[in-house]
Amino acid sequence: MTDPCTDLYVDFLCPYAWRGVELAAVLRGEGEPFRLRHFSLVEGNHPDNVGERTWHLDEQPSGEGNAYQQSSLAAFLAAQAAARQGEEAGWAFTLALFRRRHEGGGELDEAGILNAAGVAGLDLVRFAHDRADEAGLRAELDEAAGIGVFGTPTFVLPDGSAAYYRFELLTRDPQTARQWWELYRTVLGSGASIGTIKRARHRPAPKPAA
Amino acid sequence: MTDPCTDLYVDFLCPYAWRGVELAAVLRGEGEPFRLRHFSLVEGNHPDNVGERTWHLDEQPSGEGNAYQQSSLAAFLAAQAAARQGEEAGWAFTLALFRRRHEGGGELDEAGILNAAGVAGLDLVRFAHDRADEAGLRAELDEAAGIGVFGTPTFVLPDGSAAYYRFELLTRDPQTARQWWELYRTVLGSGASIGTIKRARHRPAPKPAA
Repeated sequence: MTDPCTDLYVDFLCPYAWRGVELAAVLRGEGEPFRLRHFSLVEGNHPDNVGERTWHLDEQPSGEGNAYQQSSLAAFLAAQAAARQGEEAGWAFTLALFRRRHEGGGELDEAGILNAAGVAGLDLVRFAHDRADEAGLRAELDEAAGIGVFGTPTFVLPDGSAAYYRFELLTRDPQTARQWWELYRTVLGSGASIGTIKRARHRPAPKPAA
Repeated sequence: MTDPCTDLYVDFLCPYAWRGVELAAVLRGEGEPFRLRHFSLVEGNHPDNVGERTWHLDEQPSGEGNAYQQSSLAAFLAAQAAARQGEEAGWAFTLALFRRRHEGGGELDEAGILNAAGVAGLDLVRFAHDRADEAGLRAELDEAAGIGVFGTPTFVLPDGSAAYYRFELLTRDPQTARQWWELYRTVLGSGASIGTIKRARHRPAPKPAA
């Protein structure tokens, strides 16, 4: 028996992850189970990790490193703290923080985190306490590395298939979300054993008639 | 009016390109038009081309450079020479050379090129003459660069959509080929505006039950 849940790896820095979370949130509303997991783009792309993975986000002192490093670490710990108040609280906080950053154009900073906690209706005293607890983050980042996650959003299906799914548009319509999700699953399940479909960088004008 | 033909960029070095050519060949047999084009992986990945594209495969003296460089240049020029004997001759030569290399495990060398020319039933005197003519190759490599091709096979649809399509399995079955092709087109045409679906490197075992 396998876990019927799809794991969704996200980084709050990433607008594609935001659209992935919105997609999953719509599908959750239709009864499809997803679990939120964290993958660090800063860690994944860190020059010290080109060969062996030696640089770990969760080992960095908070308040040090560049803005991406600091803000993504703070956001991960905040999301874990929110999830300790229940699965729905974790999703509500994650959605609120992604929307504030990528829909509202806000910063991924302390004010943003506290705002998202308020939107999610968290117990703020407990939240403040739990944010200091880094336990659990490393295990998620290790798991992502073991799967070979390299970008977000990456979905890991119950059968173990895992792929990065990058799309430009947002949907909150259940029927559209279902179509986009089924298309992704069809690609991963295709008998062709598809490894990659990746658009070329430029979109040329239509070719002239021959 | 647009050209109804799909361009297929290939490099003879690449086993994924081979499977793409086989797919297109099956679909051509069913009446779907494809045109063979060349993209150089050696040029695309050359360290001198990281910023501006300054290193050009077709400017390299034949017989110089590493084995990949020499063999891919020779194969491109041979395929162009074959195509001067007609569209079907070009496809027959391309298929024969890809199969010899990636199905038969042969080398992409002079013997392989002459063997493929024989399998394709080319006029060998004319073929030998035309192989010396490098005209046309640069234009194709420039076109690929303009589209942003980065790997092979890349298909450029009549509407200008272009994407790398990498799959592990081979089909010569028309119905299966049609399914794999329609799936690719569905991804490129999706309202989600999908940029990438790319599998993670490792395929983990199914998750244990929660």
